[in-house]
Amino acid sequence: MKPLGPIPAGWDAIDGVLAVAGKPVTAWVEEAGGTPLFVYSADLIRRRVAALRAAMPERLALHYAVKANPFRPVLELFAGLVDGFDIASGGELAMVGAAGIAPGLVSFAGPGKRDAELEAAIDCGVTLNLESEGEAARAIAIAGRLGKVPRLAIRVNPDFDLKGSGMKMGGGAKPFGVDAERVPALVRQVIASGAEWRGFHIFAGSQALDAEAIAETQAQTIALAARLARESDAPVPHCNLGGGLGIPYFPNETPVDAALVGERLAEQFARLPDVLRDTAFCIELGRYLVGEAGVYLARIVDRKLSHGEVFLVTDGGLHHQLAASGNFGTVVRRNYPVAIATRFGAGVEEEASIVGCLCTPLDKLAEKGGFPHAEVGDLVAVFCAGAYGATASPAAFLGQGPAREMLV
Amino acid sequence: MKPLGPIPAGWDAIDGVLAVAGKPVTAWVEEAGGTPLFVYSADLIRRRVAALRAAMPERLALHYAVKANPFRPVLELFAGLVDGFDIASGGELAMVGAAGIAPGLVSFAGPGKRDAELEAAIDCGVTLNLESEGEAARAIAIAGRLGKVPRLAIRVNPDFDLKGSGMKMGGGAKPFGVDAERVPALVRQVIASGAEWRGFHIFAGSQALDAEAIAETQAQTIALAARLARESDAPVPHCNLGGGLGIPYFPNETPVDAALVGERLAEQFARLPDVLRDTAFCIELGRYLVGEAGVYLARIVDRKLSHGEVFLVTDGGLHHQLAASGNFGTVVRRNYPVAIATRFGAGVEEEASIVGCLCTPLDKLAEKGGFPHAEVGDLVAVFCAGAYGATASPAAFLGQGPAREMLV
Repeated sequence: MKPLGPIPAGWDAIDGVLAVAGKPVTAWVEEAGGTPLFVYSADLIRRRVAALRAAMPERLALHYAVKANPFRPVLELFAGLVDGFDIASGGELAMVGAAGIAPGLVSFAGPGKRDAELEAAIDCGVTLNLESEGEAARAIAIAGRLGKVPRLAIRVNPDFDLKGSGMKMGGGAKPFGVDAERVPALVRQVIASGAEWRGFHIFAGSQALDAEAIAETQAQTIALAARLARESDAPVPHCNLGGGLGIPYFPNETPVDAALVGERLAEQFARLPDVLRDTAFCIELGRYLVGEAGVYLARIVDRKLSHGEVFLVTDGGLHHQLAASGNFGTVVRRNYPVAIATRFGAGVEEEASIVGCLCTPLDKLAEKGGFPHAEVGDLVAVFCAGAYGATASPAAFLGQGPAREMLV
Repeated sequence: MKPLGPIPAGWDAIDGVLAVAGKPVTAWVEEAGGTPLFVYSADLIRRRVAALRAAMPERLALHYAVKANPFRPVLELFAGLVDGFDIASGGELAMVGAAGIAPGLVSFAGPGKRDAELEAAIDCGVTLNLESEGEAARAIAIAGRLGKVPRLAIRVNPDFDLKGSGMKMGGGAKPFGVDAERVPALVRQVIASGAEWRGFHIFAGSQALDAEAIAETQAQTIALAARLARESDAPVPHCNLGGGLGIPYFPNETPVDAALVGERLAEQFARLPDVLRDTAFCIELGRYLVGEAGVYLARIVDRKLSHGEVFLVTDGGLHHQLAASGNFGTVVRRNYPVAIATRFGAGVEEEASIVGCLCTPLDKLAEKGGFPHAEVGDLVAVFCAGAYGATASPAAFLGQGPAREMLV
């Protein structure tokens, strides 16, 4: 039997059925019109934001990284919870606009911004995190053509990475940001262009669970911002410290100690160098804020035996849960937290593999896990489905199409 | 410098620009309205089908696996080229219907068929490749309710796999098909139900390049079909031998020797056991027929240096080319065949990494490859993009949306 990932806190059962917002998921499936279905819990999102606010120094602003989950009701919920939004494309710019989010709260990072995306962002007053000297030149030229003052920050490629992070975004040659030693010259150029100078965006990595490593990276980030400010001889109105805080997906992973991260950051803020005394600091988080607040529900359409092994075949699959299938950003496949939602909390009765409906051996949701005995019609729950699920999976594969989504 | 995969045969240049159907790809991009763009060559598809027909025994029918590329003009082209179509979902059933393909030419395999999909397929006369006893019971019940005679074949989980195949679909416990020893009982049950008995579907693996291994698997498949026919005491009207023939994606891979596969299959057909004398045989291929006939084109929007390394940032990425990025079905990332389309055939001038526009380190199209010096505005070509590209990638990721597609 292979272990399953840890089910996040906050998920309960009603009469043996996984429940969200006071109703069993069977009721939500009925309301949505069927499976596969993503259910996102507004309560769990609110609680996560509140807990993080309590853990972090008051001075730290909190941004939501739209890429984690751009479902419109989720964006509308975050509009009342966070201080800013980070987007990664013109498509996401349109999404935050549709959700009624003020462009002044939005910053745009991403290594391949097209001219049309730069123009749309400059036109409405979104802050651009410039990824290169070339992008800076294009943005300044476009702003000139539009007769606008662009809001420009520089994304720095730091010389360090976030240790233990699932996604390393610094510490060597990267397509993201400008190498630190070339930043001061670009700062002076941006300021000389007459742009509104917004400061630095320094993102060393994401999906880390080690609080000490995150704290160390934040200290390095603040030191780097201070050094670049001195070398640029320029103020730093804003400093985006990046993300970092991850969530446990796999067996033996445990939640990050956010309180410790907050304590260490408060210590940093208490002894800021002069050059950053007036700087507004923020972190941008996606997965950490919404990942554990979502569940993916699929219905078992077949239960079969092959060479003595049990396979539960669902109407969902990797077309909505690419990362859970082990095919996105992981080398060795391990099981996500997965359960039989309609027998939630029941004991282990058998070993079974839960697979998707796609005609490919890649489509595994849980391999040889321990589950209660499930039958056709039962619902399977894949947890940690709130981030990088619906939009980070090939929804059109094998003619399937997108899953339903609801925020409750 | 890391090697690049082999560019497939049949791609030429006009004045140093990659060309398809007599025009440079720059012209096709203009006609399509921009990048990213998939261009599929009707000529290369026709030539591949003709060459395969010439290599294979006349008795072997050729089916197209829609999942490889369901773009409607591609389906319409194949309607005039192949003898049948294999689908994997109700969505693909609607696609073949929209392309004007007769349901009698279509068979439907897939482990998680919903009742609504079974009903739609039975209603229009599509052959179902039954994946389990449970699915058989559901199909027979649905047909009874509809007052239809269902066309039923059984998908067999073979006791062998296709050696060296990228996707193994047999040789142990699998979610696909019915274990061979339970097949005879199910055959008798299907025939007793009054269904139209169609025969066997035996798919041991795909994406293999070793002709001997494919020939051996086909021989094993025919022997298994004969054994099951005898044990079932039933005729085998049709036998789908599966797929198997792959295409080279990576350095040092070479094309499969289709002529050898055809010769060996002709030998098998010449000494068929009595019980298969009247059987109609087919193979179903997707990737082999269309994979090398497509190219993915993206435009370079930034050229940047980081710690001495060159990064060419494009407006495309893993949201259309998941497999090329190394995140789908591969453990170790290797480079696909990638070239600068607007400097096609030019010599190697520098080492560069070609990345997508997504703000994630996963979004690599070519890592440290040797290329001519390219600038912003140049087009990048990713080859082998005809199969499992557009639909097998997370098009909505980071708010990007689908690529353009055209068949020329």
